[in-house]
Amino acid sequence: MTSLHPLDKALALESVTPGQYRGHTSPGYWNMVGPYGGATAATALRAVLLHPQLLGEPLSLTVNFAAALTAGPFTVQAEPVRTNRSTQHWSVSILQTDAQDQPVVTTTATAVTAVRRDTWSLGDAPMPAVPPPAQCPRIALRTGVEWLNRYEMRPVTGTLPEQWDGQGDSSLSQLWMRDEPTRTLDFCALAALADVFFPRVWLRRAVRVPAGTVSLTVYFHANSAELAATGSGYLLGQARGQEFRNGFFDQAAQLWNEAGAMLATSHQIVYFKE
Amino acid sequence: MTSLHPLDKALALESVTPGQYRGHTSPGYWNMVGPYGGATAATALRAVLLHPQLLGEPLSLTVNFAAALTAGPFTVQAEPVRTNRSTQHWSVSILQTDAQDQPVVTTTATAVTAVRRDTWSLGDAPMPAVPPPAQCPRIALRTGVEWLNRYEMRPVTGTLPEQWDGQGDSSLSQLWMRDEPTRTLDFCALAALADVFFPRVWLRRAVRVPAGTVSLTVYFHANSAELAATGSGYLLGQARGQEFRNGFFDQAAQLWNEAGAMLATSHQIVYFKE
Repeated sequence: MTSLHPLDKALALESVTPGQYRGHTSPGYWNMVGPYGGATAATALRAVLLHPQLLGEPLSLTVNFAAALTAGPFTVQAEPVRTNRSTQHWSVSILQTDAQDQPVVTTTATAVTAVRRDTWSLGDAPMPAVPPPAQCPRIALRTGVEWLNRYEMRPVTGTLPEQWDGQGDSSLSQLWMRDEPTRTLDFCALAALADVFFPRVWLRRAVRVPAGTVSLTVYFHANSAELAATGSGYLLGQARGQEFRNGFFDQAAQLWNEAGAMLATSHQIVYFKE
Repeated sequence: MTSLHPLDKALALESVTPGQYRGHTSPGYWNMVGPYGGATAATALRAVLLHPQLLGEPLSLTVNFAAALTAGPFTVQAEPVRTNRSTQHWSVSILQTDAQDQPVVTTTATAVTAVRRDTWSLGDAPMPAVPPPAQCPRIALRTGVEWLNRYEMRPVTGTLPEQWDGQGDSSLSQLWMRDEPTRTLDFCALAALADVFFPRVWLRRAVRVPAGTVSLTVYFHANSAELAATGSGYLLGQARGQEFRNGFFDQAAQLWNEAGAMLATSHQIVYFKE
């Protein structure tokens, strides 16, 4: 008997009609006041991938976190609003019912899928030279936040401050990471991994303030065969803040596989308090 | 008599119902087979800003270019799908009618607006040290592409290759830029400026291939008062490609004002042929 990987449990969607799916929040990816944002992003993408009219593979995904999902069932709606010869544009919403049994939007998303072709190709942001995963000790974050247990993390630089003393001096993190337990990489897992980085404001300030992603974008640079070839190997994730201002900061991130291929670039804008 | 700035002409929207607006493509921002993408992005944002239920100011904008608009009228629909205490989530579409008089979606977008607060703030990506605008000669691009005449551009580095010889070696551009004629900066003008950079693939390869933006995201880091204070001054724009693969590349961009304040960060994923 094979048991489902926790990510596959979290991404289990039941088709109601083409483009409408029922799912349920997953304890395995619970964050502090709702599901891990990466799992929500992966869920939105999963609905696109399940759609019978899907063209191609994921190219871009933008997820707007309008409200934390509450523990329980949700509905995902994925609509192909425009299909071209080689690209397809998607509109996605996640809805729950409120206390008055009215539908409320918790998440909006857009995605583009595309049929990709062999062209001139070039990586112009090489993977930084860092020690291999085996030389970077694994960290165990005993925070009681469940989703952190779903990732093996081996920081290279920019881990959580040891002292919250307000003396941070950089917003750069680099870490080796993969699903825990291990799982063959696919688009949904990659989308989820793009949100792994803890809030840059914690690192830059060495002050722990409430923070939450407002909008996340992932650009996929690899195809499904390349993701499958990456298998359950580590990814090097790199994240950096560019501007912290008036309650929000941005984060730019890159994800390479161990062979140095850029699999995804990602950006997010994040709320922070104080 | 004061004549409207070309950008204000392009952004003129007539309210049909709250959240539904009629506009018309503008010859002043015409690109090769449709409007300049930056003008389309600004139009989507303009519809949000006109909505009577608007909360706060723009924080993020993602625009998906599903199809080139044809010259003529269009409809913009902007809906606030979720309003929280200090953030508001928007879904936007631009539609035209096809030859059979049926509505077709040309553009989808999502936006987040927010009420921003005074908090700890820090620029973590300082403006690069470059010569001031007056020391960077203005380029005149006599290409017949009309929208290029709407921007004054003073390249610092990474201008169009002088020879299309396949010998490019960098995807980095830096340039001083502002509206032509000059115009006081606002959110729509800033969104449009975020799309000014010519395709990174042209620069990196020194080969001119067909290319077009598929999805563009802009994160706004300044408020309306800071934009107004920037006035009609120059912005320093910086853009770089990270990965070119199988028909698509990404671009990461930053826009600072002359005083060195980061006004926006932006990203896009772009189709290219061959």
